[in-house]
Amino acid sequence: MLSPNIGQRGPVEHERREQIITAASEHFRHYGYTKTTVADLAKAIGLSTAYIYKFFDSKKAIGEAVCGICLGEIAAAARAISDEKKPASDRLRRVFLELTRRSSELFFRDRKMHDIVAAALGEKWQAVESHDAALLAIVRRILQDGRDSGEFERKTPMEDTCRAIMLAMEPVRHPILLEKKLDTLDEDAALLASLVLRSLAT
Amino acid sequence: MLSPNIGQRGPVEHERREQIITAASEHFRHYGYTKTTVADLAKAIGLSTAYIYKFFDSKKAIGEAVCGICLGEIAAAARAISDEKKPASDRLRRVFLELTRRSSELFFRDRKMHDIVAAALGEKWQAVESHDAALLAIVRRILQDGRDSGEFERKTPMEDTCRAIMLAMEPVRHPILLEKKLDTLDEDAALLASLVLRSLAT
Repeated sequence: MLSPNIGQRGPVEHERREQIITAASEHFRHYGYTKTTVADLAKAIGLSTAYIYKFFDSKKAIGEAVCGICLGEIAAAARAISDEKKPASDRLRRVFLELTRRSSELFFRDRKMHDIVAAALGEKWQAVESHDAALLAIVRRILQDGRDSGEFERKTPMEDTCRAIMLAMEPVRHPILLEKKLDTLDEDAALLASLVLRSLAT
Repeated sequence: MLSPNIGQRGPVEHERREQIITAASEHFRHYGYTKTTVADLAKAIGLSTAYIYKFFDSKKAIGEAVCGICLGEIAAAARAISDEKKPASDRLRRVFLELTRRSSELFFRDRKMHDIVAAALGEKWQAVESHDAALLAIVRRILQDGRDSGEFERKTPMEDTCRAIMLAMEPVRHPILLEKKLDTLDEDAALLASLVLRSLAT
């Protein structure tokens, strides 16, 4: 059992929090989010329920943290592509494909993670809103680069184009829609990316 | 109670079938699809359960018929727009808006119809596949008109463009995605339609 180091705040508290999130993530992956209680988690981690509640208000708060980490990894992968020194059109196409692949991996390889994301989407968790904001920033950055370099048209209002592209990504990154097209996912992402790139042509 | 006119097949049978579908549709609208049993329906319509089973194998078969009628109305509205003597770009934009409005009306004005469509989508009912095929034909037709008249580009393979447009419609016609954006639905449909139309520009 982990013993709380009373008196040592800050770094130690942060470390404990991380430990709980890592253990919770493993637990959710095996047993699912919906069926797990805070008491189950406490038992599995070897901590008291009261101790866990020092760090998280509720199971939902733990779920938010786990979800935030998973979505954070997806956003980081997309951001890495957006940072490359390549034409904006290449980067935008690869962001479509990467989001599609990572999302389908998260939701369907880790089948049990699907229910945490479904809960997050259904209840509009902060983690999902933050993720959408991160992706919007990535899209906006690539779009701006493409406009600056003369690759993309500049007539359409920037924010309208960003929103439209975010919408056009939904069919290949939303878990409910992904599930219906697992067989054609890469092809569908490529078709949507091509449509979007044609819409951006000068 | 409706009495089955034994011996009079054909038109009468067809009429009975229609009566059951109409009554079932009303019943689902009030009480929801999931909670209704065939026995509930029989009681509400004033027929025996056995009599209903003469026309439909299961509750799902009745649900399919009701769903088929609702989706058929949506497709008919889109088809009417595609038949108008107007530029292809106008028609395509209006099909986006019409599908969005009709879908949101079906799913959210008739809140109880939402669960029948959710079942239909979750279980891949034939009614949904037929609807998708009908919409694909409408998109293909407008696209062909626009290519013939020189309004739209002709370089991209026709079927790729059709599929990409069908995908781009999902965010504003899929019930699960619609639900998240009821406040901005018309605007989102217009943004997506504009993106698609820019992608078709010559």
